[in-house]
Amino acid sequence: MSFRMPGEFEPQQAAILIFPERPGSWGYNAKPAQKVFAEIINTTARHEHVYVAVSATTRPTAERLLDRENITLLDIPSDDAWARDVAPTFVRDSESGEVRGISWRFNAWGGTYDGLYAHWERDDAFAEEFCRQAGFPCVSAGDFVLEGGSIHTDGEGTILTTESCLLSPGRNPGMTKEQIEQKLCVMLGADKVIWLPRGIYNDETNEHVDNVCAFIRPAEVVLAWTDDKNDPQYELSAACLEALENCTDAKGRKITVHKLPIPDIPVRVTEADLQGYEFEEGEDTREVGERLAASYVNFFFANGIVLLPQFGGENAPSDRRALNIMKRLLPDLEIIPVQAAEIIKGGGNIHCITQQIPEGVKL
Amino acid sequence: MSFRMPGEFEPQQAAILIFPERPGSWGYNAKPAQKVFAEIINTTARHEHVYVAVSATTRPTAERLLDRENITLLDIPSDDAWARDVAPTFVRDSESGEVRGISWRFNAWGGTYDGLYAHWERDDAFAEEFCRQAGFPCVSAGDFVLEGGSIHTDGEGTILTTESCLLSPGRNPGMTKEQIEQKLCVMLGADKVIWLPRGIYNDETNEHVDNVCAFIRPAEVVLAWTDDKNDPQYELSAACLEALENCTDAKGRKITVHKLPIPDIPVRVTEADLQGYEFEEGEDTREVGERLAASYVNFFFANGIVLLPQFGGENAPSDRRALNIMKRLLPDLEIIPVQAAEIIKGGGNIHCITQQIPEGVKL
Repeated sequence: MSFRMPGEFEPQQAAILIFPERPGSWGYNAKPAQKVFAEIINTTARHEHVYVAVSATTRPTAERLLDRENITLLDIPSDDAWARDVAPTFVRDSESGEVRGISWRFNAWGGTYDGLYAHWERDDAFAEEFCRQAGFPCVSAGDFVLEGGSIHTDGEGTILTTESCLLSPGRNPGMTKEQIEQKLCVMLGADKVIWLPRGIYNDETNEHVDNVCAFIRPAEVVLAWTDDKNDPQYELSAACLEALENCTDAKGRKITVHKLPIPDIPVRVTEADLQGYEFEEGEDTREVGERLAASYVNFFFANGIVLLPQFGGENAPSDRRALNIMKRLLPDLEIIPVQAAEIIKGGGNIHCITQQIPEGVKL
Repeated sequence: MSFRMPGEFEPQQAAILIFPERPGSWGYNAKPAQKVFAEIINTTARHEHVYVAVSATTRPTAERLLDRENITLLDIPSDDAWARDVAPTFVRDSESGEVRGISWRFNAWGGTYDGLYAHWERDDAFAEEFCRQAGFPCVSAGDFVLEGGSIHTDGEGTILTTESCLLSPGRNPGMTKEQIEQKLCVMLGADKVIWLPRGIYNDETNEHVDNVCAFIRPAEVVLAWTDDKNDPQYELSAACLEALENCTDAKGRKITVHKLPIPDIPVRVTEADLQGYEFEEGEDTREVGERLAASYVNFFFANGIVLLPQFGGENAPSDRRALNIMKRLLPDLEIIPVQAAEIIKGGGNIHCITQQIPEGVKL
């Protein structure tokens, strides 16, 4: 057997999302977010099957907002709605085609060190429960802490990740960088890890790679960028560019980097946003004026389409620029713009709330 | 990565056993069985680490009977004491050396079709809980039903199993023989499955392979045998011999078969045995005079030693014969005879109550 994680741009059999409800992440009873999630789910379901995890509370709304066709609702408890980070990461056996889920240890992006909520038991159990209900074999990674959003792959032996996240004391402080590389390679069937130093400024996940840099095909990435040297993002993106220019992938190829500029106007928490949240004890709170980690890199490939975040309002020109760049880079795919301001307020974006299951078989 | 299940005769880091207590399996409050289990655990612990699962009830007895050195007691709930069938099956990555446990679905040897007890939830959860507590990554096999005692491997790509068990309607009735082969090969990193038609007469596991035939090294097996054509075992062993003589292993080699005669006098349930049991609702019961599936093939390799079942009493000459054959076949190992009459009364033997963890690393 020879299991590897396929690239997200490879054919998929399904996507996984979690219907949102957490009051500290999704303001105004999560109603605005639920509408955007529903749009993303219904659009995706026209290209592949979609599994949607619901609670007793969200099920009626999900049933009302979601199309019937190609969507399966599953009753799986969760602490929030970040399927990328808590749903399984899937690998496929190149010989038999069998697809398996990996269950990583999840500690809410840093556990007691700098985690974002005080309880994450349901999120930690999510991947195994999903596999059980959906009928996929599941591999547990033991005590190794990882979120799906902190890795990308080219599907050909290369893993892309960030040092700021994977080497954070809130993840696997007992492991060396080399041990972490080895664990990633064993679990994902990869040969090489490319380390970017940083991610997006003020990204509360310790700067997940999926917000700053993504493969669009092997040996080719988009990188969140700004030319404004006074923007705190400049230094972070420049450091990533330097790392990418000085590395080769698992097959020895140089990486082509396409710059994908961030919104020209920083997206910030407003007074109106803040009024909508209800924070729990021990939960990371927000403040008015706080800059959100808005980036166009946080898109999702789903069988012939790309769902691209848009922030609207004064960033409409930035939105159009990102859309045009993506259309040019991926001329064979349909690039679908999604007004995602309500998702970035929750702390992530379209890639963070989705997880793909590659094509393959259940043995 | 390239995970495969090593042969039991390869180097091991540890063994797993469960301290016995079930009143319908182990008569007279399990006291006679606990003594034999303790002897096996203490002997094994002189050659490798031993993990012993205990309950709140058995822990004090286990602490009293077991040596301190090289033994770890773990509080893991179980329905009975068959570690071979409910503990993980371990595979190792040939590149990194990482060792992982596989958790199969367990249904008490046949579920509602012909299972042996009515509740098996704790046994079904045992493998994952063991991995969690002992710190090994765990692979779940999804809904695929299998017991560890129903497979053997040469560690070089060949799996040995029995049709009577794996094709029984109580296991995976929705799968074809070819699908079962493929599933075994994917999960165990193997290339070929050798099917023996049958096992040991009256073996209530649907004739597990580990009671009838075992690899002693690649391309070489011992086969439970009788020359008595009136013995119901004759036909079963003859059918296995024919299958072995007409097959090659994954590497294309013919298999050398060594006959290992069963006890000359059938081992049967006595009136005294029966008085000791307490059966639960829905549990398979025993009867006086019932023939037990006694076989010398149910031995256990543990790093330089082999623990060989002996039945004692009128079978003392058969015991010596088996001991001499095994000493001749494995001159470099210490063959340790163990008086195992109390274990066969429970329905299995030394191999059934043990499970090995191969040498390797935790990443």
